[in-house]
Amino acid sequence: MKLINQITPIEEDFAKWYVDVIINGNLIEYGPVKGTMIFKPNSYGIWENITKVFNEIIKKKGAQNVYLPLFIPKSLISKEKDHVEGFAPELATITKVGDKKLNEDIYVRPTSEVLFAQLFKSEINSYNDLPKIYNQWSNVVRWETTTNPFLRSTEFLWQEGHTSHSNAEEAIQFTEDMIQTYQKFYKNYLALDVICGKKTEKEKFAGADTTWTIEAMMKDGRALQAATSHYLGQNFSKMFDVSFKDQSNKLVNVYQTSWGLSTRSIGAIIMGHGDNRGIVMPPRIAPIKVILIEVLANKNEKVKEISKQILELLQNNNISSKIDNSNKSVGFKASQSEIEGIPIRIEIGPKEIEKNEVLVIRRDTLEKYPVQISNILLFVNNLLEEIHNNLYKNSQKRLKENLVYCNSYEEFKKLIKQQKFVVVPIVKDSFKWEEKIKEETLATSRCILVSNIFNIKEDKCIMTNEVTNNFVLFAKSY
Amino acid sequence: MKLINQITPIEEDFAKWYVDVIINGNLIEYGPVKGTMIFKPNSYGIWENITKVFNEIIKKKGAQNVYLPLFIPKSLISKEKDHVEGFAPELATITKVGDKKLNEDIYVRPTSEVLFAQLFKSEINSYNDLPKIYNQWSNVVRWETTTNPFLRSTEFLWQEGHTSHSNAEEAIQFTEDMIQTYQKFYKNYLALDVICGKKTEKEKFAGADTTWTIEAMMKDGRALQAATSHYLGQNFSKMFDVSFKDQSNKLVNVYQTSWGLSTRSIGAIIMGHGDNRGIVMPPRIAPIKVILIEVLANKNEKVKEISKQILELLQNNNISSKIDNSNKSVGFKASQSEIEGIPIRIEIGPKEIEKNEVLVIRRDTLEKYPVQISNILLFVNNLLEEIHNNLYKNSQKRLKENLVYCNSYEEFKKLIKQQKFVVVPIVKDSFKWEEKIKEETLATSRCILVSNIFNIKEDKCIMTNEVTNNFVLFAKSY
Repeated sequence: MKLINQITPIEEDFAKWYVDVIINGNLIEYGPVKGTMIFKPNSYGIWENITKVFNEIIKKKGAQNVYLPLFIPKSLISKEKDHVEGFAPELATITKVGDKKLNEDIYVRPTSEVLFAQLFKSEINSYNDLPKIYNQWSNVVRWETTTNPFLRSTEFLWQEGHTSHSNAEEAIQFTEDMIQTYQKFYKNYLALDVICGKKTEKEKFAGADTTWTIEAMMKDGRALQAATSHYLGQNFSKMFDVSFKDQSNKLVNVYQTSWGLSTRSIGAIIMGHGDNRGIVMPPRIAPIKVILIEVLANKNEKVKEISKQILELLQNNNISSKIDNSNKSVGFKASQSEIEGIPIRIEIGPKEIEKNEVLVIRRDTLEKYPVQISNILLFVNNLLEEIHNNLYKNSQKRLKENLVYCNSYEEFKKLIKQQKFVVVPIVKDSFKWEEKIKEETLATSRCILVSNIFNIKEDKCIMTNEVTNNFVLFAKSY
Repeated sequence: MKLINQITPIEEDFAKWYVDVIINGNLIEYGPVKGTMIFKPNSYGIWENITKVFNEIIKKKGAQNVYLPLFIPKSLISKEKDHVEGFAPELATITKVGDKKLNEDIYVRPTSEVLFAQLFKSEINSYNDLPKIYNQWSNVVRWETTTNPFLRSTEFLWQEGHTSHSNAEEAIQFTEDMIQTYQKFYKNYLALDVICGKKTEKEKFAGADTTWTIEAMMKDGRALQAATSHYLGQNFSKMFDVSFKDQSNKLVNVYQTSWGLSTRSIGAIIMGHGDNRGIVMPPRIAPIKVILIEVLANKNEKVKEISKQILELLQNNNISSKIDNSNKSVGFKASQSEIEGIPIRIEIGPKEIEKNEVLVIRRDTLEKYPVQISNILLFVNNLLEEIHNNLYKNSQKRLKENLVYCNSYEEFKKLIKQQKFVVVPIVKDSFKWEEKIKEETLATSRCILVSNIFNIKEDKCIMTNEVTNNFVLFAKSY
């Protein structure tokens, strides 16, 4: 039980709990440069699974994978004014190679809009070439002052999709389809319920007309922007002269979208499902779904035999599993598997196998089941599904219970202090009010709601008292 | 036939032919920074397939994927003296973020030995923790003066494997196993025959005890280093203090290996198989294995119906295929598929389908076969195998015919001028002789042969006349 003592209780200090579980759960090691980290097999394995699943999803939508350079010359990124202003303070800048000073500063990509604009320019001539749906899996760098593993790291991994369309309607539809795709992905694979909406002018992506977002609720009540989808309009295509000949042979600038999902999603998993024993991995993206622990194996050949049989059975049925072969005690192995959040643990002991049974323990509820060995595959498959459903149900419940409506600023301040997701009526032109709210409460606008969750048509703005039908979600965030 | 005219004949100007086929074959677009490039779907698709296949191979050897930071602080990389000296002139250096100067220069990784040393240090305590077999798929940057797409690009993609072992024997065996794995991979997937050997002192990796290499012969007779595997001994583990307690509780530094395969392999495919019509993709890693071209489809509904049926049949059997739906002529589509090197082209025309046939054309020999529609799946599967075998056979033949032995320097110079792979007896301590040879002939030492291909036990060194049993392959190289 020593291992569990290493974890700060979640209620005591959430930030410390988070660091404790990602270190003790063997997810990361800090890198030598501030804000960078090493993804160990336990976290990179999640990302590999996300990559696999998400690739299949977007390839069905016609996406083709490409890879664009890491480096962007200053002159190129500076073409889109809003864009470069948004990123300028965070840009890692290469000024020399070996001892030689470069003629022009070169940035490490913070995102690749300007490079994709170049690619589109060379690929698109006529309406026949459209739409173009590209995606890349890559690393990007944003040098932020405050960093936090997965959530806000200097370097992170992501997919960035970029599309060009012949008309605004199609591009807008694609933007919205992608945010819904992310929402479904979070539900179906990460077992997290999220809120979908539009960013306010203040919070939207530098260079976008509209930014859609999904916001996830972490266990401390703070919001995490979990994925975004941007309608770029013709902002980049005009600056970079990306155009096509339409059916009447007229030259038109393309309409673009971009959308991304990053290794932040790993942070969302940990802060969305974890508990005082450690991480709780959603089964569908868990690198290891089942861990086998042998009890008294040294004194019992049969234990080894049965555990090997079960391992092979599970692996042959595409359930990634392993036997913990370390020379640790059974108790230590059990605790370690809980810290790492492995969905199912199977303990194989001499007593149980005499009854042709093994002991199955689920990570989410810690319930234990004696299971007939002959029935183990079916049982594991069903339990993995049940764990997924249970995790999602809990996430949904938590979001529902902590998402509240209010229409007075005094009440709002109280609710934000209680770490709630607070929806308020606020005038559409809310830039300065958002600044004031942030200053006074630390809460930021997460998104403009687009579905009428609280069944209210209009109400008085909490800041100006004007009647409005604009409802915005505020919360403290990562 | 207009397309084919865009390609410079291979005999006329090999370098120009290479650029023509990678541009017209839609493999790349140049990036905005010198030596960088955009991997378009046709080339990134190859890399995706290589990744998939190679991941399976190394996971069977127990490798776990991880991801380490892009950035290495100057102080860290400087710890291994040979290592930093080898890379110093090529290091892209970050000196500021936004307007702020950094306290220490930060390098973009040229390779990750020093970062892996850090990871191993934190992960390894006892002999029980060994061996550790890690791999990462990443981008790396080496700012070279002369660049060439795929072959020598400022940024490239690769896998770099890093292992730690408890003893030298095991590490040496792993190093050798990996070079053989690469050799088999080139044979079984890229259909290329390569020569395997050890690098001389002059050419070995900065920081390694021994570097193994496989060298592929390009169609112009030049050599391409196709993959390497290094035995690092305790060089890094001593510098970075990576040690474990052995069975007698004594602290010992680990023995390490590293091994890599990069997007150079795409260059090897193009220069190893291409011809005057364009690229020739080895079927097992071709992003698209079969292209379907409809003839007179506007006038014949049945043509569309049949081509759709065949497409579905092939796709359902995991043969990646597509119909060329562009509004180009049949001739244009056929030429384009040849430039892109798609292994099999199927033309579906009204005349043929009346006989329940389609026309199948293989890219390697351009032979055409009328094939019964009912037999198409079996035919395509067999033909893909035959194309692979034929490509490999040709590669093997070319290597055999152009790999020659000589024991006089005069003869050597002539053979190098004829673009041969020349094996010569040369004294073991050959550093200065290699420099002289390079200066006078442009040829470099590719590897010390380890198998006695020419059945010669010893001979007189071509430079010193001393008797030696050291046989080294020289060639001009990329």
